[in-house]
Amino acid sequence: MPARVTLLTDFGTRDGYVGAVKGVISAGVPGALVDDVSHDLPRGDVSAASYALGRFWRLYPEGTVHVAVVDAGVGTSRRALALEADGRFVVAPDNGVASRVLAETTAWRAVEITRVETPSAVRSGRSSTFHARDVFAPAAVELLLGSALESLGPRVHDPVVVGEPAPVRGDREASGVVIAVDHFGNLLTNIPGAWLGRSVAHVAGRTARAVSTYGEGGPRELVALVGSDGRVELAVRDGSAARQLAVGAGAEVRIVSPAG
Amino acid sequence: MPARVTLLTDFGTRDGYVGAVKGVISAGVPGALVDDVSHDLPRGDVSAASYALGRFWRLYPEGTVHVAVVDAGVGTSRRALALEADGRFVVAPDNGVASRVLAETTAWRAVEITRVETPSAVRSGRSSTFHARDVFAPAAVELLLGSALESLGPRVHDPVVVGEPAPVRGDREASGVVIAVDHFGNLLTNIPGAWLGRSVAHVAGRTARAVSTYGEGGPRELVALVGSDGRVELAVRDGSAARQLAVGAGAEVRIVSPAG
Amino acid sequence: MPARVTLLTDFGTRDGYVGAVKGVISAGVPGALVDDVSHDLPRGDVSAASYALGRFWRLYPEGTVHVAVVDAGVGTSRRALALEADGRFVVAPDNGVASRVLAETTAWRAVEITRVETPSAVRSGRSSTFHARDVFAPAAVELLLGSALESLGPRVHDPVVVGEPAPVRGDREASGVVIAVDHFGNLLTNIPGAWLGRSVAHVAGRTARAVSTYGEGGPRELVALVGSDGRVELAVRDGSAARQLAVGAGAEVRIVSPAG
Repeated sequence: MPARVTLLTDFGTRDGYVGAVKGVISAGVPGALVDDVSHDLPRGDVSAASYALGRFWRLYPEGTVHVAVVDAGVGTSRRALALEADGRFVVAPDNGVASRVLAETTAWRAVEITRVETPSAVRSGRSSTFHARDVFAPAAVELLLGSALESLGPRVHDPVVVGEPAPVRGDREASGVVIAVDHFGNLLTNIPGAWLGRSVAHVAGRTARAVSTYGEGGPRELVALVGSDGRVELAVRDGSAARQLAVGAGAEVRIVSPAG
Repeated sequence: MPARVTLLTDFGTRDGYVGAVKGVISAGVPGALVDDVSHDLPRGDVSAASYALGRFWRLYPEGTVHVAVVDAGVGTSRRALALEADGRFVVAPDNGVASRVLAETTAWRAVEITRVETPSAVRSGRSSTFHARDVFAPAAVELLLGSALESLGPRVHDPVVVGEPAPVRGDREASGVVIAVDHFGNLLTNIPGAWLGRSVAHVAGRTARAVSTYGEGGPRELVALVGSDGRVELAVRDGSAARQLAVGAGAEVRIVSPAG
Repeated sequence: MPARVTLLTDFGTRDGYVGAVKGVISAGVPGALVDDVSHDLPRGDVSAASYALGRFWRLYPEGTVHVAVVDAGVGTSRRALALEADGRFVVAPDNGVASRVLAETTAWRAVEITRVETPSAVRSGRSSTFHARDVFAPAAVELLLGSALESLGPRVHDPVVVGEPAPVRGDREASGVVIAVDHFGNLLTNIPGAWLGRSVAHVAGRTARAVSTYGEGGPRELVALVGSDGRVELAVRDGSAARQLAVGAGAEVRIVSPAG
């Protein structure tokens, strides 16, 4: 099984920081396959990182190491985390980036990364500001080389989790919130897709009928459908629902079943 | 021969959708080498996707699978296509994304993708909105594993092709149009480079002398030259021709040979 | 040792130019691992390219080929360069892109690339505008296949170097300049980190106390610290120092030690 790593950061690519992380991984595991997921996350947006990671972490095969670094508090006392979940690994700051992973499985173990060495090629020595290069990448290398999770440091039983509001279900009605806006301007909610049926969705004073695919909408029509994560999503065909409605994360969404 | 896939989409990277596609490919073919080409295409711009794909599909070795997903009509009745062209594979919606590939070779066969299974790791089940993860990536996996094209579904003899206006050649004059503007603001035309010679190009009321390289232009001079695709291109040294002339795709270009 | 290439350009990704470069590499070395570092460098910004390259070139293992193409003068008479430095290779225009590499080691040899063939798959023939595809990628392939550096062309003893202003150290005071602004808006200076101690930094009429990590700063406080490159850096916690101070590269920075 070839060693595979994914990278998810808010570093941008211009400065070469991503190159430094990849260099450390390649030096440690010369045949490692490194997949970029994103380096374009909103700066310090732990919640966006958690959602993005939630979309792909388990689609990768067991043994994959996901490096996810979005960090408002680099150099503060937040822990550096390594965790194994359903046979995949995640290395990330302990600030909630792994929340969705932890919510999606009970088969996880976590440790605080305290025992990795900064590569000697880092001439300036271990930096207190660039943990991706000096802590997370070396930890990923260790895991790819087959080290046990526990060899990286002591067990952590209480990783930071950023909760998500729970949707509420009534008799003929349910309500939830927009939890993210995607690249296409689709409004992603926390309402389970199974609740949608033939309901009408209400958001920002607008209504949206339930359809099966974007394409069923008329031109610029706001529609509600079950998105690829299995939750209710609001979309505008060939347009941006977020822009058309001028709403974002946090907006309330209500779905109402037809009478009878 | 290692399995190699390229990805060309308009997904952006922030949401983790690209990660999901890569995860499915890695789970199916653990050693697959996955090359990003772009995830930054203009949303739903089939023509831009076709041009971009035209620039690289045949430079890759035989056996490469190009996954190109730009799709205004996801979930509508448009077919999902897999094609083999000159020994390379393309999987893409049947909406014109493969137009340039089809224009550049007669050695192609196409099928509609009807027989792939959505990976079991996709917990929400097959989505009608995320074909890249649930249809195109699994099709790419099948091809990388050596399945025959025909095993994916029935033959298609009439894939959708987005045509391109033909340039017109007169005696001392030829005319065409700008078909694309690149990242540098260069205006790419449909006029064959062989026609340029020592002509003067006319566009948007401006004239441009023919040169061999960008560097021959004076500072901010508009020049015409044979671009890397073998066609006439208009460029401004250290600047953007598109911005300087305020023109884009569709603008008329005329080239006139010197008298005598 | 698997063949590994990195790519650092200002091409953007939309046009498929990056795909063309990767295709040529894959066709030449089918198992090559290709790592993107950036395709998003400021257009023609040789200095930015040099800094970025400086951050990662030596973290990669020996034998890695770094392809770095940022080029204001493509098609002019500037040479195409291949160099070996500390066992890693760099192929780049001879315009200063390799300045930091050359500053960081004395163990380098350089040649002008004069003896590579444009791949036959490039149907338009060798282009005078797309050297990354037609010159640099083929040179990278030769090096990955084990060709000696000298087989690519004649030795070059005077590659172009873009100098960097030297910091000045006085008794209780030192001064330097901002040499780059990173993605986070941090101001990176040319002042060695070892000089910082408990000094106070002065920039743009503001003062910044020395801290060890970003997190030690109060909300929106401007602080000075030793950055990941081992030099003094000015940062604002959860904000952008560049925006808050409205300064960029070239701004003067003075550090003053406490009396006594």
